[in-house]
Order: sequence, then structure tokens, then C-alpha cells
Amino acid sequence: MKPINVGLLGIGTVGGGTFTVLKRNAEEITRRAGRPIEITVVADKNLELARKVTAGACRVTDDAFAVVSDPDVDIIVELIGGYGVAKELVLKAIANGKHVVTANKALLATCGNEIFAAAQEQGVMVGFEAAVAGGIPIIKALREGLTANRIEWIAGIINGTTNFILSEMRDKGLPFAAVLKEAQRLGYAEADPTFDIDGIDAAHKLTIMSAIAFGNSMSFEGVYIEGISKLEAADMKYAEQLGYRIKLLGITKRTAEGVELRVHPTLIPAKRLIANVEGAMNAVLVKGDAVGITLYYGKGAGAEPTASAIIADLVDVTRMHTADPEHRVPHLAFQPDAMVDLTILPQSEVITRYYLRLRVEDKPGVLADITRILADHQISIEAMMQREPDAGEEQTDIIMLTHKTREKSIDAAIVRIEALPVVKGALIRLRLEELL
Amino acid sequence: MKPINVGLLGIGTVGGGTFTVLKRNAEEITRRAGRPIEITVVADKNLELARKVTAGACRVTDDAFAVVSDPDVDIIVELIGGYGVAKELVLKAIANGKHVVTANKALLATCGNEIFAAAQEQGVMVGFEAAVAGGIPIIKALREGLTANRIEWIAGIINGTTNFILSEMRDKGLPFAAVLKEAQRLGYAEADPTFDIDGIDAAHKLTIMSAIAFGNSMSFEGVYIEGISKLEAADMKYAEQLGYRIKLLGITKRTAEGVELRVHPTLIPAKRLIANVEGAMNAVLVKGDAVGITLYYGKGAGAEPTASAIIADLVDVTRMHTADPEHRVPHLAFQPDAMVDLTILPQSEVITRYYLRLRVEDKPGVLADITRILADHQISIEAMMQREPDAGEEQTDIIMLTHKTREKSIDAAIVRIEALPVVKGALIRLRLEELL
Repeated sequence: MKPINVGLLGIGTVGGGTFTVLKRNAEEITRRAGRPIEITVVADKNLELARKVTAGACRVTDDAFAVVSDPDVDIIVELIGGYGVAKELVLKAIANGKHVVTANKALLATCGNEIFAAAQEQGVMVGFEAAVAGGIPIIKALREGLTANRIEWIAGIINGTTNFILSEMRDKGLPFAAVLKEAQRLGYAEADPTFDIDGIDAAHKLTIMSAIAFGNSMSFEGVYIEGISKLEAADMKYAEQLGYRIKLLGITKRTAEGVELRVHPTLIPAKRLIANVEGAMNAVLVKGDAVGITLYYGKGAGAEPTASAIIADLVDVTRMHTADPEHRVPHLAFQPDAMVDLTILPQSEVITRYYLRLRVEDKPGVLADITRILADHQISIEAMMQREPDAGEEQTDIIMLTHKTREKSIDAAIVRIEALPVVKGALIRLRLEELL
Repeated sequence: MKPINVGLLGIGTVGGGTFTVLKRNAEEITRRAGRPIEITVVADKNLELARKVTAGACRVTDDAFAVVSDPDVDIIVELIGGYGVAKELVLKAIANGKHVVTANKALLATCGNEIFAAAQEQGVMVGFEAAVAGGIPIIKALREGLTANRIEWIAGIINGTTNFILSEMRDKGLPFAAVLKEAQRLGYAEADPTFDIDGIDAAHKLTIMSAIAFGNSMSFEGVYIEGISKLEAADMKYAEQLGYRIKLLGITKRTAEGVELRVHPTLIPAKRLIANVEGAMNAVLVKGDAVGITLYYGKGAGAEPTASAIIADLVDVTRMHTADPEHRVPHLAFQPDAMVDLTILPQSEVITRYYLRLRVEDKPGVLADITRILADHQISIEAMMQREPDAGEEQTDIIMLTHKTREKSIDAAIVRIEALPVVKGALIRLRLEELL
């Protein structure tokens, strides 16, 4: 059967992996897809690299715009990244009636509404399995595997760099800065790690999952984002003593008041499976009303795991491209005319549990002052731990876990607690999720 | 848009769950599927039950054969079970040009080749997500999510009853018989638990996963099956001391010599995520050459989790039924003309690691005799543990973990070891998998 022709934009790590896997597993992929899938042209600014990787197996060019207009190309794989030229190229490819497969989470989270509308208009598919959690087929699970369910929430470890750093901090009791440096040396963190450690990458992925879980339009601007750079090893130790681990989670939840969209370090019970996801691995928990909790685990990044997701999309497009567009899987899980604009809940209105750590003078009445303030704000304590002060030390740490409370109440209480003369320095506040 | 009409055969636990979830989530499912999915007729021998569950919402009948011939029915959901009348009904439905969704693992594992050939012939779909691991979308992951990969192996906890029993045995140190009785009281095990505890149910599910992973025809008759009824609490304790847990795994692996297909109690490192899957939960590990290891976890049984999988198939059929059959996802992941008959490796030729426990007289030279026999068979020991005999006791336990070796070598060695006068009773032999 005539092969389906792919134009690959960007032959970096993931592009190279896609090229390699598609070639290595060509026979098995053809047996699945029903016809060969061939990369016929690669575009990259670095022509030399493109020539080296492709080794004469296909055309190479430095003109990506020529590729998206090439009448011989059926599917464009976009691996350039970012929202600049990548967006132009994707829209141009769609306008030219080409199907698109992309790993570009930043582009979809910020410009997805526009891109999917254009794809719908043109009757082409846009595959994005590789945009979230690398090789884990989580987009497919949400979009097709769990269609029976009213999805209640999703909570995921969706950034490998930060999970690696947190695992190392806990394992070795080292401070954030030292572990980050080590992660950079090992290639687990980029030279400029901002996107990862500040939670922006996780927020992009969360935005995409939230849209397909709830049939909501992409709402990246509504995500509350808190990274891991201020996390202290002491809190990881205290969390451990209380039976919890700290993970950077992307959480989206449907509540009566609106959709929660938040990325932040989170205490989770150590006995949960997801608390034991270590190193650069990813895992996503999904709670559906019928299925209950399901978990999906695997490598969230890297050349071949990401290529696995890209090629799965290529096979999907190959299997489905002759079907009329109304009878394909809808881009965002819900039919285009059934998408809605749900209210995004401001973080101040989110209700969850909290971990508080304060440094206090070790003298009578301190606890009474603090607990009275919490009571004033209707915040109740579930567990408390006070560190035994060392000999001669006049200050100590108090750690408290609260019951569920609204974030603005805890914030108001914190302002008052920090103003107490017996309380030294800023209070540390982290969020806690039971994930049940 | 005109609803798609479903005829439901069997309104027991799963049928009732399907009815309930389809009704409760009708609005959200329609937004995903593009048109309403309605159960228009239910067939069950117990007419009274059918009337009670459906409460006038659809027709009820005790004639399932009338339903599979009903021209108003588009999709048949078969929840009768077994290979008798269920097979007749499924084949009749297919012959009548109806799509079929089934949770019947026994039927597919034993008669799947015939059923899928008939479906192919008629151009209809047969969905079976619910047949393996309940609500976990593992069929979709294998058939569509991991299509880029050469799948190397699958290892799964795919029977909730036995996982519940093993979790309890380990937790409470109780013998198998006592825990089984408790499981039956709690409803985790059936009055006749044979299918579960003897590993037959797991073997059915394994057969299906193996077929879609490797493009192999269904080979249930080739599965090596060993259940959990002879497991002793002592071995769970020793395994624990060595850093392992015992789980009933279904394992299928592609080797140069043939496909391994085996269900048996297995020691796995306690630190693996899957070793921590407790109670009646299911989890499946899949190793692909590109993606590496991925894991899928969730409820493997129960009314609504199973309904979740059945309805996902109904949505798939609804989304895809107008596509021409060549451009749908192939039933068994590979195109029908690309399926092959792979050799199934006899269990005696399987190469893996082993756990051995022997009861021996506590006197000099015992170990030398045993290790010489192992050496004769080229079996090398990775770890050994000897229980300190209690005061006055003249026998003790020796536990050994071997390196990888062929099963027929270990079996030959065991015969010789058991013949040693210092060795008392039968040697206990379990298999061990690193799952890397």
C-alpha cells in the first residue's frame, strides 16, 4: 500500500528519536497501521545535523515553510517548540489541509483554542499525545479510555526535572540549590531551568489535561503556579515524619464553584502509589465517577519515550484519516459544539488541607495564641508536632496539618500569626492532598 | 442526532452498572460521542430483575436471540459470560451486521480467533476493553497508545481476588485457606473460587493481551498456569526478608525462541511500584522498546469500573461506526492479514530466576551436597539465607535465590536434591522476576 508521507520539523533530541524508532520498528508499525509511515522530508536550521541523522534516507531542508506547503506531505510533525514560528507553521499546515502531530505543550496550552478551531474548520487531525507525560498514553486514556466517566479530578507528576530534584532532596537531605546543580550536571535539568522548576511546564500540561477531562477550553492564564525553588529540606523531613511525601503536582478538579487549576508542591500520603514515583518518572492519577481512581506511569521525557507518543499519533492519523471528520475522535475529547467555558476558581477560593511550619519562642502560651487565631478563622487542626528544642536553644519549630479549609482563610490567619511577637520569621505553608 | 441503539444481554452486576452509568452520565457521554447512546432493550432470563433495574426505561425480554436479530439494535453488549450460549449469540449478532461489545474474557481467549475472523468478514467492530483489568484502559493502551513500540513483555496483576488474598496473607501472616474463607465472606471471592485462585481467569486475560501485544493469534491452550492455593505464609515472610513480595502475575514475553505465556505466583522486588499494588486492585506493566516501562493501575472488577470500560467501547463504536472497516483500529492491534502464529515456548524452556526453600537436617555438609547438585546443572546462586534453628530443633530452612536458569534445569536439580537423605519433604520452588 502507498506509504503515508510525513514532514518532520525539527531534528533535535525528540526528532532524532522519532526518526530512529520509525525506522527501527517500520515493519511492526506497518503491520499495525495498515500502510508504511515514512518521513520523506526533514526541516531543520541545522542542515548538517539533519543530514547526519537522516543519512540520506530522506530529503533535508532548512525551509520549514516549504515543507508545510509541500503537496507530497500528508502529516506534519512539529518539534520546534515555543509559540513563535511553530504556531505559524502549524496554522499554515492546517490551512494547507495537512494533519499535524505535535509535542508542543506551550503552544497548545496558550494557543490551542485557535489551533483546534482551525483544524476543525479544515477537517484535519491534530495529535498531541507527546505534549503531556511523554510516552504515557494519558491523552488517549482521557480522550477515549474514560469516556464513560464524569471526571472528578486529575493529579499528576508531570515534570520529570522537578520530580528528580525532589527525590534527591528527600533521599540525600540536600538543599534545593545543591540538587539543582547536580541535576544540571547529569542532564536532568536545563541550563536555564526556569520553565521546569517554576512549574510553568507542568502548568502547560495540566491545562491540556483539564480541557480534555472537562470539555473546557484551554485556560492556561487561569492556572495558579508555584514552583519548587523555595522548598526546604527541613519540610521534606517533617512531612516524612508525619507520613507524607512532597511532590510537585498539577491538579485540576471540578467543583460546584468552578474548576481548580493549580501547580504547587503538595504533601501526599506516603503510602499512595504515586508518592513512590521517584526520579525523573511521571505519573498521572485520574478519578472518574464510574471507574474510581486509575493511575498511568512511565517516562515523561527523553528521545524514544516521546517518539513513542508521536508515532502513536501518526498511526492514529494513518488509521483514521479517510474517515469523515465527524466520525473521528474529537480533538478535545468532547464534540467541538459541546465545549464550554467553565469558570476557573481563583486560588484564594480553593478548599484543601494545609501543612504549616512556624518558628516560635519556646515559652508558655505560644500555642494558645496560635490556635486561637486559627479558631477565629474556623481552621481546625488535624495533627501537630513540636520539635524538642536542642539544649540551650530558645526557639523551636511547630508543624501543623489542618483539616480542609479555604485558602483565603488560611492566608488571613497566617498574616495574624506572623504578627505575633513570639513567632519568628515567615510561616511556611504547603498544601496537602489525600488523593482519595 | 439520532441515538445509537444498544441491546444489552445480561443484567447482572456489570449489566446493572452499565445501565446506571449510561443513564447517570448521559449528557456528558453524548457530548463526547456526538450522539446519544441508549439501551433500548435488555435480555435476561430473570425478567423480574430486568424489569426492576430498567424501571420502564426500555424494553425487557427473556429472549436474547430475538435481541441479536432485532433490526433496531445497532450494538450488542454481551454480559452473559462463558463459551456456550454467549458464543452463539455473539456470532449471530456479528452475522446480523451488529457491532459487539463484550466483557467475556473466557470466550475471547478460547474462541477469539473465530469471532474476530467473523467480525472482519462482516465489517463490524468487537470491543473488549472490559475483558481485561476492568476499568483500566489497558486494551486501548496496547492497541493504540503503544503502537510505535516493539512490545518486549507484559506482566500484570490481573485478578483482584487472588491479589486480595495474597495481600491479606502477607499483612496478617495467615494461611491461604483462612484468608480465602474471609475473602468469600467479604464478597471478594466467589463461592466456587476455582477460576480465580487456580489462575484460569488471569490466563484468559493474559491470552488476550499477548495477542494484541505481539500480533499473535489467541493461544489460551499454550498458557502455563499455576494458582496460589499451595502458597504458604512462610514463603511470603522469607520473600519479604529478602526484599521481595509475592504476586500472582500473568507474564507474556517475546523471546528469540518463542513467546512465553505463563501465570504463576512470582517474587518481585518490593521497591517496584507494582509490588505495592494491594487488595483487589489490578495493575499491568508493559515494556516497549521505545517507551520503556509503563504501568496502568486501577480497579479490575466491580459494576461501575467494568461499566466504564464497556461504555468506552460503546463510545468508540459510535464515533467510528461509519468509517470504512479498513480505517478503523484493527481488532487485535495488527491488521488481520498481518497476524501471525508465533511459537509458544513450553514452560520447561522458560529462562527466569528461582526462589527455592528446603527443609534440611542441621548438620555439616548439607549445603555442600546441595550446591554441588546445583553446580552440576549450571545453576548459580545469587542469595542464600539459612534460618537459625530454634533450640532443640534438628531441622532448619534454607532459602536460595538463583540467577537466571532454564526451568528444565532447575526441575532436574530439584529431583536430585529431594533425593538427598538430609533433605526433608518437598522443595518449594517459586519464580522470581526483576521486571526491568
